[in-house]
Amino acid sequence: MPKEKLSFNLKTPKGTKDWAGPDALLRDRIFTTITNVFKRHGGTALDTPVFELREILAGKYGEDSKLIYDLQDQGGELCSLRYDLTVPFARWLAMNPDVRSIKRYHIAKVYRRDQPAMTKGRMREFYQCDFDIAGANFDPMVPDAEVLRLITEVFDELGWKGDYTIKVNHRKVLDGVFEVCGVPKEKIRTISSAVDKLDKLPWVDVRKEMVDEKGLDSTVADKIETYVVRKGARDLLDSLKGDETLLANGNAKTGLEEMGLLMDYLEAFNVLDKISFDMSLARGLDYYTGVIYEVVTEGSAPATSSSAPEAQKLQRSGKKEKARVDVDEDRSNDPSIGVGSVAAGGRYDELVGMFSSKAQIPCVGISFGVDRIFSIIKARMEREKSEALRSSEVDVYVMAFGGKGFTGLLKERMHICRTLWDAGIKAEFFYKTKPKLPQQFKAAEAGSVPFAVILGEDELAAGEVRIKEMGLPEGHPEKDGVLVKIAMLPSEVKSRLEQRNTKVNGDTDEEVVAGKVQALEV
Amino acid sequence: MPKEKLSFNLKTPKGTKDWAGPDALLRDRIFTTITNVFKRHGGTALDTPVFELREILAGKYGEDSKLIYDLQDQGGELCSLRYDLTVPFARWLAMNPDVRSIKRYHIAKVYRRDQPAMTKGRMREFYQCDFDIAGANFDPMVPDAEVLRLITEVFDELGWKGDYTIKVNHRKVLDGVFEVCGVPKEKIRTISSAVDKLDKLPWVDVRKEMVDEKGLDSTVADKIETYVVRKGARDLLDSLKGDETLLANGNAKTGLEEMGLLMDYLEAFNVLDKISFDMSLARGLDYYTGVIYEVVTEGSAPATSSSAPEAQKLQRSGKKEKARVDVDEDRSNDPSIGVGSVAAGGRYDELVGMFSSKAQIPCVGISFGVDRIFSIIKARMEREKSEALRSSEVDVYVMAFGGKGFTGLLKERMHICRTLWDAGIKAEFFYKTKPKLPQQFKAAEAGSVPFAVILGEDELAAGEVRIKEMGLPEGHPEKDGVLVKIAMLPSEVKSRLEQRNTKVNGDTDEEVVAGKVQALEV
Repeated sequence: MPKEKLSFNLKTPKGTKDWAGPDALLRDRIFTTITNVFKRHGGTALDTPVFELREILAGKYGEDSKLIYDLQDQGGELCSLRYDLTVPFARWLAMNPDVRSIKRYHIAKVYRRDQPAMTKGRMREFYQCDFDIAGANFDPMVPDAEVLRLITEVFDELGWKGDYTIKVNHRKVLDGVFEVCGVPKEKIRTISSAVDKLDKLPWVDVRKEMVDEKGLDSTVADKIETYVVRKGARDLLDSLKGDETLLANGNAKTGLEEMGLLMDYLEAFNVLDKISFDMSLARGLDYYTGVIYEVVTEGSAPATSSSAPEAQKLQRSGKKEKARVDVDEDRSNDPSIGVGSVAAGGRYDELVGMFSSKAQIPCVGISFGVDRIFSIIKARMEREKSEALRSSEVDVYVMAFGGKGFTGLLKERMHICRTLWDAGIKAEFFYKTKPKLPQQFKAAEAGSVPFAVILGEDELAAGEVRIKEMGLPEGHPEKDGVLVKIAMLPSEVKSRLEQRNTKVNGDTDEEVVAGKVQALEV
Repeated sequence: MPKEKLSFNLKTPKGTKDWAGPDALLRDRIFTTITNVFKRHGGTALDTPVFELREILAGKYGEDSKLIYDLQDQGGELCSLRYDLTVPFARWLAMNPDVRSIKRYHIAKVYRRDQPAMTKGRMREFYQCDFDIAGANFDPMVPDAEVLRLITEVFDELGWKGDYTIKVNHRKVLDGVFEVCGVPKEKIRTISSAVDKLDKLPWVDVRKEMVDEKGLDSTVADKIETYVVRKGARDLLDSLKGDETLLANGNAKTGLEEMGLLMDYLEAFNVLDKISFDMSLARGLDYYTGVIYEVVTEGSAPATSSSAPEAQKLQRSGKKEKARVDVDEDRSNDPSIGVGSVAAGGRYDELVGMFSSKAQIPCVGISFGVDRIFSIIKARMEREKSEALRSSEVDVYVMAFGGKGFTGLLKERMHICRTLWDAGIKAEFFYKTKPKLPQQFKAAEAGSVPFAVILGEDELAAGEVRIKEMGLPEGHPEKDGVLVKIAMLPSEVKSRLEQRNTKVNGDTDEEVVAGKVQALEV
C-alpha cells in the first residue's frame, strides 16, 4: 500500500460499535436468557435477510421512513436495510400463506438513521429480540395474554423482578376516546402521536402541540385530558365501563371488553400485578390494531425533563426530525434522553394483509431492545462494582517448566492439549517453543483460567503431570498442585471442574451463567 | 392502503433467502457445534457492524471489490456492507493497539454481489464462522497448527470424520516456485490466480490462460507445471527439500522450513492424516503471507468440468466477471459449479498494518462457510431420508376435554401452563376458549410434542390431571395416560422427560442435539 493511504479514518460508522470481551459475553448471556424463554413458549426461529426490497418497507413506518437506510442502486433490485423485524415477519407470512399458525422468534440487528446516544443504548445499528404469535381463528386476547406473560418471564429471569412495569393500553379504547371527545377522523393518528409523548412531556406541552400545531379545538383537548392522564388496573377498567358516553362508542366498547378478558387471563397467568393500564400509551407505529404495551424500568425515563429546555423546544417544533438526522453528535450525555422503553409491542391484525389479502393473518408480538437492556445492566454492574464476566471460558492452561537445558516441551504440551480437547475440555497453551514459567502463569491469570496443568521432564518420564488450581491461598495442602497419571488427566480435570463449580456457585456451569445474569438485580 | 399497492413483488432480494423451521434449527445446531469448538480453544466473541466505512474495505479484495454492496449516500459517511469478517477484525485490531494477543471468533453474515447458486449454498448474503489468532512474538507455525487442529475438530464433530481433506500450501513456497521458474515479479499474483483454478480446470486450460491471456513465456509455464501438479505429505516436502535450485531461493527455503515445522506440530496434534500438501492451492485474496488452506469434501468439486463447456469458455475469457454480475439467474443447476471449499483461511501478517503501522500484528485464521456445510448436510439427510428436526422444542401440550356443558377450562389450562413455565418446562396450549379434543391432539402431533397433560372437570376437582406420552402403541399399560397430583406435575414431567431421552437416545437433551448432527455421517 502507498504511504498516504495510511491516513484511514479508523472508526466504525456513526451510531455503530464493536462488541468485544466481557460486553459481548454479557450481551450473549442476555440473548440466551431471552431465547430460553422464547423456546419455553414454543417459539421457532426465523431468520430473514438484513435487507428487503425497498417496496416491502414503503408505507409501513409513517414519518420514520426517512430513517431507513437504502442500498445504493448498483444495477438490479432496489433494497433497504430492515428497520425492524416485524415487517420482514409479515412479508414472510404473506409469502407462506399455508402457515396458518406460528410462534416465531427472531434475534437480529435492525437499522435506523436516527440520532445516536450510544451509552444509553440508542444506536443506528442495534439488536432486537422479537417473539410473535400469528394465527387465524384464535379466541380474543388468549395469545395476547401469553405474550405479556412471556415478557414477565424474560425480565424476572434477567433479575429485574419487581422493578419493571408493563404499560398496557388498547388502540380501540384510545380511538373510542378520541371519537367520543370529538377529534375529527383525519386527526386521530396525529393526536394519538401527541398523546404518546406524555411519558416525556407534561400535559401542558402536549396540549399546546395539539391545539397550536395540530389545530385541535381546545375544548376537545380538555376532554382528552380527562381520559389520558388516567392509569390503574381493574379499578380504571371498572370506572371506564361505568362511562355511558364512552360505552356507546363501538370501538371503545370492544376495546374495554377485550381489556377485561385480558385482565382475567393475566390473573390466571399470575402476572396482573406487573401491569399498568395506562391511557396515555399510544405507540407511534401505524400498524397496531388492538392491545399495545411498553415495558419501562428505572433508567427508561429522562433524568429531568425540565433540565433540557432546548431539547424540548426542538421536540415541540416541527424541526425535530431534521435535527435528529443532521446534528452530528452522540447525545449520550443529553439528560433529556432516557433509554426509553426496554420492550414494546402489540397486536397488528392487518399488516400481513398489506402484502397479500389472501394471506391475511392476525398477529401479536413483542420486541425486546437488548442494547438498552444491556446498558442498564452494565451501568448497574459498574455502580455495584460487580466482577466482570470472563471473556473466554478456558478451563485449563497447559504449561511446562524445567531447569538448565529446558527444551520447552512444546510437542508434549501440544499432546496434552490434544488429549484435553479430545475430551471436550477447554484448554490452551503458550505459543512459544521455550516459554518461561512466569509468562505462562501470567497468561493463565490474565484469562482467569481456573486450572493449570504443568509439565516437567521428570514427571513426564513417570507418565505424570501436575494439576494445580489457580489462586489457592498460601498453606493450602494443594497449593503446589497434585501429580496425576496422564491417562487419568481428562477425568481428573472434569471432576475437579465440577467440584469447583459446586463449591463456588453450588451449581452447574449452565446455571452459573443464568445465575450471573440474575444476580444483577435492579 | 390503496388497492393498487397490493401488487407487491413478494420476495426476498436476489441471492438472499429466509431461514425457517427445521432448516433454521439445523443451521443453528451447526453454529452450536462450531461455537463449542471455538470456545474449547479459548475463542472470545467479537461482533462488528454489518457495514464499514467504505475506505476501510477499499484495496483489500483485488478484482472482487466490484462485488461489494455500497450503502446509498444519504448524507454523512459513505459505507459498504462487509465482504468478509477478516477485514473488520483487522480494523478492530488496528483500533485497539493494546490488544497484543487474542483468539477471537465471529459468526455473522457477509455480503457479495456475486451470481448466486442457491441450492448449492452460494448466496449473496451468507454466514461465515471465523476463528482467528492474532499475536505478536509467537513462535512460527504454533498457532497455525492449532487452527488446523481446530478445523478437524469442527468437521469431526459435524460427523464428517474421514470424509474431508485440508489442502495446505504456503505462499512463500509458491512465490519461490514462481521466482525459480522465471515468472516476472509483476506477474506473480496474476499467475498465482491462474494456478488457483487447477481445482476446476485441467492443466492445459490453465496453461492457456497463463500463456495466451497473461503473456507468460511458454517454457516458464512448463516449468511451473512440474511443481504445481504435485501433492502429498512429508514425501512431497522431502522431495522439494532435495531440490537445490528451489532451496537456493530465500522465499522457498523459509516456506519449506515452516511447512516442516507445521507437519511436526500437526503430528503432535494427531491430525497429519487429514492434510494434503497441495502445490496447486494458491487462494485468491491478496493479503495472505504464509500458510494457506482450504477444506474440500464430497460436493466441493463440480460434477464434471467437461459437461459445461460454456461456463468454462466464460471463465477463460476476460468476460467472466461481468457475466457473473449481470446474468440474472440462479445457477443452482449449473453442473460446472460445486459448492466449492467448505472452509478456508491462512496467515495474513500484514493486513492490520495496512490500517495502522503502529498496531501491526501477525494473524492466522479460518473461515467456515456454514451455508455450504448446511447444503451438503441437508442434501445428505434428504438422500438418506433422515427424520427432519423438530422446529420447536415444546415438551408438553396442555389440553382439556369434557362432555356436555364443557366450559373449555381455559383459565385452568392457563394455570397449568403457568405452573410448568415456572418450573422451566416448555409448554403450550390451544388458543381457543372451547377447543375440541381432536383439535388439540392434532396440534400436539403436528409439533411432535412428546407429552400431553389433559385436564377434565372431575380430575381437577380431585386436584389431579392426566399425563400421557404421545404415540404409545395400542396395549401399552400407559396408553391412556396416568393421573398425577397437580402439585407433583412439574417434577413428574421432568422425570418422564429425562426417562424418555435416556430411552430414545441413551443421552441427555443437549447431547441429543449434538448426536443428531453427528449422525449425519458423510
